[in-house]
Amino acid sequence: MTQQEHRCTTSADMMAAMVRAVVCLLLWTSVSPVSGSYVDQDMNRTIQNFLQHYNISMSDIFNGKPVFSREPLNGKIETKMVFMGGVLEMYENLIQHILKQYPTPSPLIARSKEKAASSITAESITSSGKRSEATRDIRQGLEDILDKIQKVKKHYYQEQVKLVHGLHELRRIQMNNLKVQGKALWELSGLFDEAGSLAKTISMKRRRRRQAKTKAYRRG
Amino acid sequence: MTQQEHRCTTSADMMAAMVRAVVCLLLWTSVSPVSGSYVDQDMNRTIQNFLQHYNISMSDIFNGKPVFSREPLNGKIETKMVFMGGVLEMYENLIQHILKQYPTPSPLIARSKEKAASSITAESITSSGKRSEATRDIRQGLEDILDKIQKVKKHYYQEQVKLVHGLHELRRIQMNNLKVQGKALWELSGLFDEAGSLAKTISMKRRRRRQAKTKAYRRG
Repeated sequence: MTQQEHRCTTSADMMAAMVRAVVCLLLWTSVSPVSGSYVDQDMNRTIQNFLQHYNISMSDIFNGKPVFSREPLNGKIETKMVFMGGVLEMYENLIQHILKQYPTPSPLIARSKEKAASSITAESITSSGKRSEATRDIRQGLEDILDKIQKVKKHYYQEQVKLVHGLHELRRIQMNNLKVQGKALWELSGLFDEAGSLAKTISMKRRRRRQAKTKAYRRG
Repeated sequence: MTQQEHRCTTSADMMAAMVRAVVCLLLWTSVSPVSGSYVDQDMNRTIQNFLQHYNISMSDIFNGKPVFSREPLNGKIETKMVFMGGVLEMYENLIQHILKQYPTPSPLIARSKEKAASSITAESITSSGKRSEATRDIRQGLEDILDKIQKVKKHYYQEQVKLVHGLHELRRIQMNNLKVQGKALWELSGLFDEAGSLAKTISMKRRRRRQAKTKAYRRG
């Protein structure tokens, strides 16, 4: 490859990278319409409506036991990204689960229908209609949230989500199966060697960083 | 803090970092006695003995379906380290499981004892004794491997193993519980915001790296 050809290829690569960056920016703008926050008003409204509709009180929410631990979000950015990949994956499953669990009409409406089976009044029909509308709104809102989560997962956390899947697969290994035990032990040599090499690489990187700091400190 | 005090503190930090590095080196030397490989002869011998003792053939091992996927080990070093944290964790559980599952005497010996219950000969006692010795050797070997794995996990993969535990905890969230659903949705706003900030930080880092490359390319 001549120098000119090399320059052309590099320019094309840079152009492609710039196009990718613009596409990501446009995508993020569509995900985050509210300036300064990635959470839009519709998302907040849907969450509030869900809590209200299913009678979940603030004392239920602030019981001192959050669903998600914040500890992994205090580490390095790579650690945070992997944990966030798992969190987004979990939200995707949860919202899909909620959408399956509470089909329109909601369980509350079903219950109110049972109670009023013998004495249907105009008032109860109107009330039931309002509830049904609220449930539809919540469903639509949850579907929109699901769409946003899936977009962010796909465009920013693809590598991390893949790793999370790989880690979950490890838990599915059949520990009781003698052949699996033998195969896993056979594979141990290669993997333990790799574990050592990785630890060595990381240690060397840290040492180089320390040396660079020492040099900078001596110069300063 | 005076400049001299600051210099003393930094020197103390560096000394502590150097001591840590030497301790890690000594530890790694104890884990890896064979030059050029992190797997020692004892580990290999134990694995071979296990396969032989429990009649696991090479055709069982090379059936085209490895227990551990190698895909996550083709990524970035941080991804590899996290996956390796999960692999080491899994090996720790597996070996503990094997040690519990096959207490001395081994299942093979138990079976041979049943068969020979009515006709105990001097030959069968010798054969049983040899097998019992082999099982004890395998157990001791597996305990040594377990010890090595635990040392490497503790000294080089602590952060990664913590993250793996955090990710596994996510799978234990009770999706069927209405209050948990509500709480999780309440926590979504903060977490989705964090997911956005992290994605933005990573995008900016990548852009800076691209710009640095462009500058270097223009200079070159």
